[in-house]
Amino acid sequence: MSSLAQNIISAIHDVVGIEPVSLHEPRFPGNESKYVQECLDSTYVSSVGKFVDHFEEELVNFTGAKYVIAVVNGTAALHMSLLLAGVENSDEVLIPALTFVATANAIRYCGAVPHFVDSEESTLGVDPCALREYLKSITEQHSGFCINRRTKRRIRALVPVHIFGHPCRLEEIMAVTRDFNLVLIEDAAESLGSLYQGQHTGTFGLFGTLSFNGNKTITTGGGGAILTDDSELAKRARHLTTTAKLQHRWEYLHDEVGFNYRLPNLNAALGYAQMECLSEFLASKRRLFERYRDAFLDVPQVRLFMEPDFCRSNYWLQTLLMDESISDQRDVVLEDTNDADLMTRPAWTLMHRLEPYRDFPSMQLPVAKSLASRIINIPSSSGLA
Amino acid sequence: MSSLAQNIISAIHDVVGIEPVSLHEPRFPGNESKYVQECLDSTYVSSVGKFVDHFEEELVNFTGAKYVIAVVNGTAALHMSLLLAGVENSDEVLIPALTFVATANAIRYCGAVPHFVDSEESTLGVDPCALREYLKSITEQHSGFCINRRTKRRIRALVPVHIFGHPCRLEEIMAVTRDFNLVLIEDAAESLGSLYQGQHTGTFGLFGTLSFNGNKTITTGGGGAILTDDSELAKRARHLTTTAKLQHRWEYLHDEVGFNYRLPNLNAALGYAQMECLSEFLASKRRLFERYRDAFLDVPQVRLFMEPDFCRSNYWLQTLLMDESISDQRDVVLEDTNDADLMTRPAWTLMHRLEPYRDFPSMQLPVAKSLASRIINIPSSSGLA
Repeated sequence: MSSLAQNIISAIHDVVGIEPVSLHEPRFPGNESKYVQECLDSTYVSSVGKFVDHFEEELVNFTGAKYVIAVVNGTAALHMSLLLAGVENSDEVLIPALTFVATANAIRYCGAVPHFVDSEESTLGVDPCALREYLKSITEQHSGFCINRRTKRRIRALVPVHIFGHPCRLEEIMAVTRDFNLVLIEDAAESLGSLYQGQHTGTFGLFGTLSFNGNKTITTGGGGAILTDDSELAKRARHLTTTAKLQHRWEYLHDEVGFNYRLPNLNAALGYAQMECLSEFLASKRRLFERYRDAFLDVPQVRLFMEPDFCRSNYWLQTLLMDESISDQRDVVLEDTNDADLMTRPAWTLMHRLEPYRDFPSMQLPVAKSLASRIINIPSSSGLA
Repeated sequence: MSSLAQNIISAIHDVVGIEPVSLHEPRFPGNESKYVQECLDSTYVSSVGKFVDHFEEELVNFTGAKYVIAVVNGTAALHMSLLLAGVENSDEVLIPALTFVATANAIRYCGAVPHFVDSEESTLGVDPCALREYLKSITEQHSGFCINRRTKRRIRALVPVHIFGHPCRLEEIMAVTRDFNLVLIEDAAESLGSLYQGQHTGTFGLFGTLSFNGNKTITTGGGGAILTDDSELAKRARHLTTTAKLQHRWEYLHDEVGFNYRLPNLNAALGYAQMECLSEFLASKRRLFERYRDAFLDVPQVRLFMEPDFCRSNYWLQTLLMDESISDQRDVVLEDTNDADLMTRPAWTLMHRLEPYRDFPSMQLPVAKSLASRIINIPSSSGLA
């Protein structure tokens, strides 16, 4: 085993002990069983029920978004947000190349075209300065829309992603969307509990989206949410995610092509209980970060990623950044750590390298490429702190 | 109150008693709490876990399908089946005008075009004779494909729906799909437990789809399943519904635009317990039918719909058919029964009458129109028997 891998394993062992650990495990220390049982007892397990209301209210209280619509997963939340933001067939939507594939997929579901953007090392998210220069060079404004001069297509929206929970540089990003007439939709799937200048991520754009998949800070089994401050759009989101059915005592009238995307009450019952634990989870994850930080102080050529100073991160996934000079050892480290029963993962394969996304427009991606070759996520469950 | 409504209310009261009753309520008389708690204890609540496997195995055993893939809902099951059957942008797909809107929506998600077909009174489903005559008159075969001469589009598939649980005339329907080179996908969302000549509905086509929504014979909160006998297509369905991620120890590689459609383990735990109750539910629903049959014997101008003799129905929703001559009283009966706290519903609004589906191709729909004006569903929960 390389001394690098040995150092990393030993630092992780110092923090989490020597038992096998996975990357991120859910925990149910609160009222999870109780509320789920209550839901079964009520027989309202499906798309109607008080736990959906409770869960949405708690998300409103916690995030400060005016409206929250709970849906089946984060992908569905993105899909609906894009549609409601007016993204149409053949529009382009800017997203970081360094993201989970769901961000790109949701754009394809609208028949739209993902357009890949570079990242910055200080936030791991979209680099607003590089993006501004790029848009200056390739777009022109036409009737209030941002047109890609090369493809002649409209660039409709920008979807920054708060990678591993760390907020992007939202102020500068919002200046870009303002100056270039783009809709801002925040993919906050990973950043429940993360604040930018004291305000919750996901509440800066026209829409923000959350995920409650099993690997997230809180889970509903599968689940997601749409955040918005716009009452009309919130109403439309509720309508569109419930097969666009009009209210009527008995008639089945649907006024547009709708979706079956609402979160079942059973999953919301779990989510409502998890919301009661969220503050403790976040405190634990921050403690875990602090313990890793101390443990990795003496590991050469590797640095534990720290929240940028303008924000407070939920530290969803703890992230090691290897020095450029040793990035060729990434796979060996992944191999050795996983062999040692410490579950570690690289960043996602960059979108433009995936078979279904090879032929889409992209800016130069020097930083995303570098980050993707050097990132290793290490065990991050709140239960480890 | 009209004497017709009085007679109907009194017949329903004879069967279900005088307490308020809803149209269809779930019941959890078995191991529902136990398995759901076991799932929480395992912490595997999300898209991986033993309950998904167990639930799928039980569905294989029960339906006789070779492969079952559990997904988030019946709409997702249809969407995936259509995609995997090769339905492409601008293809036409034949569906009954008399169905729930999800059948049409799933076609639109593929960018394809629903083409509406008439029903028959004896099954409430697609009329294979009328369809054959219609296809003879408007289609021609070209390179092994069925082409709509009017629209020049390829008609790719036929999706019959087993309405309210009653099997369509599958033998004649399969003859049509064979003779006209159409793919058969059965929408069996409503017909879990229904047999056609002793074989389970949903296992005759290239794909069959089930729904486990809260109003169905068994429920998972939200859920659905894809049935198929084709091992390659089953593999593709699993792949496509889990973001098309390739197996790798750590890399995130996705080889096509995938979907986040797998059923969470939490919901599968509920479904697994419900499968243990299914036989009893079906027996109860049949008993309920028999009791309604007796109670409605003396109600003039109204007939309780009975399974066709070539099949065994799950009697998901009990159905009254009013005589043509009194169909103008349908809304009064709906009003009076609901006022009496007996939840009743008409059939769905015919698809071609819905705003988003007005301009799509359709055959003449005399029977569907007549049925839609005369059907009333009455309380059908298995707990009522």
